Amino acid sequence: MNADKAAVPEIPILSANPILIEAERGEVVENIYRGAFAVVGADGRTVAGRGDIHRPVFPRSAAKPLQALALVESGAADAFALRPREIALACASHSGEAVHVAAVRAWLERLDLGVGDLECGVMEPYDTDTARALCTSGGVPNAFHHMCSGKHSGFLTLAKHLGGPTRGYIEADHPVQRRVRAVIEEMSGARLTPHVCATDGCGIPTFALPLVAFAAALARLAQPRIKPQNQVFAAERIDACRRVCKAMASHPDLVGGRGRFDTRAMIATRGRVLLKSGAEGVYAMIAPEAGLGIALKIDDGDKRASEMVAANLLNALGLLDGPARDALKEDLECPWLNVAGKRVGVIRPAGDAFSALL
Amino acid sequence: MNADKAAVPEIPILSANPILIEAERGEVVENIYRGAFAVVGADGRTVAGRGDIHRPVFPRSAAKPLQALALVESGAADAFALRPREIALACASHSGEAVHVAAVRAWLERLDLGVGDLECGVMEPYDTDTARALCTSGGVPNAFHHMCSGKHSGFLTLAKHLGGPTRGYIEADHPVQRRVRAVIEEMSGARLTPHVCATDGCGIPTFALPLVAFAAALARLAQPRIKPQNQVFAAERIDACRRVCKAMASHPDLVGGRGRFDTRAMIATRGRVLLKSGAEGVYAMIAPEAGLGIALKIDDGDKRASEMVAANLLNALGLLDGPARDALKEDLECPWLNVAGKRVGVIRPAGDAFSALL
Repeated sequence: MNADKAAVPEIPILSANPILIEAERGEVVENIYRGAFAVVGADGRTVAGRGDIHRPVFPRSAAKPLQALALVESGAADAFALRPREIALACASHSGEAVHVAAVRAWLERLDLGVGDLECGVMEPYDTDTARALCTSGGVPNAFHHMCSGKHSGFLTLAKHLGGPTRGYIEADHPVQRRVRAVIEEMSGARLTPHVCATDGCGIPTFALPLVAFAAALARLAQPRIKPQNQVFAAERIDACRRVCKAMASHPDLVGGRGRFDTRAMIATRGRVLLKSGAEGVYAMIAPEAGLGIALKIDDGDKRASEMVAANLLNALGLLDGPARDALKEDLECPWLNVAGKRVGVIRPAGDAFSALL
Repeated sequence: MNADKAAVPEIPILSANPILIEAERGEVVENIYRGAFAVVGADGRTVAGRGDIHRPVFPRSAAKPLQALALVESGAADAFALRPREIALACASHSGEAVHVAAVRAWLERLDLGVGDLECGVMEPYDTDTARALCTSGGVPNAFHHMCSGKHSGFLTLAKHLGGPTRGYIEADHPVQRRVRAVIEEMSGARLTPHVCATDGCGIPTFALPLVAFAAALARLAQPRIKPQNQVFAAERIDACRRVCKAMASHPDLVGGRGRFDTRAMIATRGRVLLKSGAEGVYAMIAPEAGLGIALKIDDGDKRASEMVAANLLNALGLLDGPARDALKEDLECPWLNVAGKRVGVIRPAGDAFSALL
């Protein structure tokens, strides 16, 4: 790895990404959020972008729709009769609500597996009402509640299908993760070397890739016509792309959860845009009809800012109709409330960050 | 207010503040945190600084030690026989632990007041173990648990001392808040006009002032020798500064709470540095012996980054001895752990952000 490392140039952060969101308290800007975004068409061309779109970013959970391709195209999904709802859960960072936990549990039971086979660790339900109810009832969270338990169930399904032990399916050299890496390389055209490999919050490998390459992978997921280098994707990949998109569009409640921005935006656009958040301020958006892949990253990882950038990008790209814009009004610009619920300011897009994109 | 507004020039954010902290996952930088800091001496001169130190920032709760001066210098603290522990609580963003709640409750009882007189709103205990225990026992949080309940008790004490109704003590035109504003103006030399007044998380007015002016106010709190314009402070102010510093130094556990960075750093420096965090990535630090006031703000409001900047500033300014540096080792640079507790990277000061400060 060291010899290989010498060949990889250090990428210094010289200039600053633009300010995309600002939070104003009273009449004074209190916080600013910088970041970058890239919009790529199905032909692989960059349609729009701001900031350093060539800097490698970790897509984190925003890569889940790409990771789910391996599950479907391998035949594992069909071998275990997965329905669109399980494929949606494989793409999910779910809120740990009862519906999510029950669905993951039932899925693993069909594989003769249980909570002990999940290697994602234990996480409180992301949904605060669910977490509070669990606490009040004296319950303790387990791996089913982890927002990545659906994705891990997908990995377990693929591991079973490939044969051999499932144990260790989160390791970078396990056949499951090797397949997943190969899929992301093919979809993005980026080379995922060990230097850009790190460990995700749930223990699996995560690979940093240029923001624009990530957006390109999402564009190919939207319309799997042209591979990097103008080759053609195999029929299994094309079919897998369509099934993953359709599963997300059909089950926005399973991909996120009650009140979550991803879920609300998929409902508001009636599945014309598929959204997947990633930790540390990342968003992936896939617009199958429009043939667009959109990736964004907030420099400092702020989640609230990433959601507002996502909403404003959809708006600027003409992907929200009137009713969708109404439904997402407070995602485009929102009042800033204090503990007592009093309006103390506003959080909004900065200046012309999203103007004249197309 | 509109006529006055025309006279205040808009301050555009042209250049970016420097990167102070970076979070690296594997071998790739995932997040960067920009910000500014100012270090001012007791003579009012700027000793060190990075970034735009003239931009107005809201000190938020980092202003509490300055706000507490009004409580002490007015005679209210003595009239109600407040001890250093109540003065420390007036400077606190406490964690809502049993010790904090009991102390605030007892304080208000001595004033013939109760939880219903607090206008801070209701907040879960900041300490997660305390919040969980409250939830498990079927309890619900009240205003005593709010991290600002000590500061609000200080305001109630001052309101009672001044006579008239306590109700409405959080309003900008209440005598309590007018006094507090006057103290901060005198200490900082900044003019706190209605344009820079906004509402804090707990409902009181918060005033944006240039970061360097905030640091100057803290330096004068450290050694109240010279007022802005080289005038001399009244004896009551000088005495109040000493009593506020001493109270914080004597009760670091009441100013913050179990495991909190402020508390640990005050213990590690044996009260040679007094620390107060503010919401949205602000820190105030007061070094009475060294005669320094230090203020910092992270651009995007990240708390984790603000603590690491604070720790590294203390280190760079020679305010940590060997044992203090050992005690704060993981505040200066810390491993980044995932949900399962596995080390996935490191969070650390960026490049030479803190080198050659003096």
